[in-house]
Amino acid sequence: MRLRKVKNAFETLSEDTKYFVINPKDYKGKWNEVFHNDNPIHIEIGCGKGQFMMGLAAHFPDINYIAIEKYDSVLVRTLEKVSEADLPNLRIVLLDALMLEEVFAKEEVKRIYLNFSDPWPKKRHAKRRLTSSIYLNIYRALLPENGEIFQKTDNRGLFESSLESFSQNDWYMSNISLDLHKEEIFNITTEFEDKWSKLGPIYRLEARMFKNNNSLEAESSEDYSDEE
Amino acid sequence: MRLRKVKNAFETLSEDTKYFVINPKDYKGKWNEVFHNDNPIHIEIGCGKGQFMMGLAAHFPDINYIAIEKYDSVLVRTLEKVSEADLPNLRIVLLDALMLEEVFAKEEVKRIYLNFSDPWPKKRHAKRRLTSSIYLNIYRALLPENGEIFQKTDNRGLFESSLESFSQNDWYMSNISLDLHKEEIFNITTEFEDKWSKLGPIYRLEARMFKNNNSLEAESSEDYSDEE
Repeated sequence: MRLRKVKNAFETLSEDTKYFVINPKDYKGKWNEVFHNDNPIHIEIGCGKGQFMMGLAAHFPDINYIAIEKYDSVLVRTLEKVSEADLPNLRIVLLDALMLEEVFAKEEVKRIYLNFSDPWPKKRHAKRRLTSSIYLNIYRALLPENGEIFQKTDNRGLFESSLESFSQNDWYMSNISLDLHKEEIFNITTEFEDKWSKLGPIYRLEARMFKNNNSLEAESSEDYSDEE
Repeated sequence: MRLRKVKNAFETLSEDTKYFVINPKDYKGKWNEVFHNDNPIHIEIGCGKGQFMMGLAAHFPDINYIAIEKYDSVLVRTLEKVSEADLPNLRIVLLDALMLEEVFAKEEVKRIYLNFSDPWPKKRHAKRRLTSSIYLNIYRALLPENGEIFQKTDNRGLFESSLESFSQNDWYMSNISLDLHKEEIFNITTEFEDKWSKLGPIYRLEARMFKNNNSLEAESSEDYSDEE
C-alpha cells in the first residue's frame, strides 16, 4: 500500500480505544477478555483500510477479528471506518508481524489472513515476504494444530514464492485457486482487490500444518460441466 | 490429445524396433543395456507426437530419454519423426502409466516429465489425473531419493489440483511458474504448447520427494529490477 504520512497518527488512534487496542501485549493469552467471549480469533496481517475484516466481522458475528497493520498512518482512516461500523467482534492493532508472538499466546489464533501482502520482488528481500520461512515459523507458534493460513494476492511472484515456501516448510495446501474471480465461491474483497483484479488473476490458497485427508483428491478443483 | 484411430497401429510400430521398444518389461532394471551406457534416464509420460522428447534428446546427449504414450495411434507419427531424427539416446514405449512399475526398477528413472496431461476436469475422475496420489505413489517407486517430477500444463484446474496433490503427498515443490512464457528460462516446447500458449498462461513446477534446502527462499521467483 502506498503510504501518505499522517501527522500524529498514533496520538489520533489513541483517542479512540473502543476499537483500537493501544497495548496489545497486555492481552497475550487473554484476548477473550477483550471480546468478552471465547469465540475463535482470526487475524489479518496487513489489514490496510480494513474493508476485508469489516466484511468478515459483519458476516460472522461468532468469530472475533483482529485487524493488524504496521503503519499507523494507514490505521487512522481504518479506525474511523471501524468505529462507524461499530462491530463488537472487531479490533484494530498496530503491530509489526515480527512481534506477533509478544501479542498472542500459543494456539490463541485460529486463522491468519494474508491479503495482497507486499511482494518484496527482489530476491535479496525474499525473507521479508510474509510467507517466508521466518514468518511461517512465527505463525506456527500462534496457531493450534488445526490452525490455518488463508492467502490471496494478485502478485504472481509473491504467490509462486508462497507456494514454494509453504511446500518446503511442511505446510499442506488446499483450495488453491489460480484465478479466484472465475470461481463461484464466497469471497469478501479487499479495497486493493476491487481496484486491481480487473488487470489479471487473483491467486488464493489455504495452508495448514497438518494433513487434512478429506481434502486430498483435488477437493477444490472446479467441477466442470458434466459433459464428456 | 484428440485421437485419430490408426488401423493396425501396433503392427506398424512393431516394424521399426530401432526406436520403438516392443517389449519394455524385458528391460526392467536393465535399461542401460538398451542405451549401451549408464547415463541417467528421464521419461515423459504422455509424450504425444514427441517434439518435447526429441528436443531434449538432441540438446542433452548424455541423458537417455524414454517417451511413453498409452495410445498406439499417436505413436505411429511419433515413431516416424523419431526415426528421422535418429537420436541414439531416445526410445519410444507404448504403456499405460499404471504399469510403470512393471517396466522400471526402483531408482531406475531420475526424472519424470508430465506435459499437458489430460486434465480430467470432473471431480469423479480426479484420481485419473497423472498427479493424483495414485500416480504419485507409482512415481515414488521408480525414483531415487533425488528424483524429480517436472510438470507443465495450460490447464488451470489440473495445475491447482497438482499443487494440492504434491503438497498433500509430501512432495516439495520449487521453481514454480504461473506464467512460464513470461520467464526467461530454458524451455523446450511441446506441440500443444506451441499451439495453445497464446491463449493463456502455461503453469510449471518441479517436485521432489526430499527437501532441497538450497531452494528454500523463493529461489525461482523472478528477480525484478533493482529499482526501489
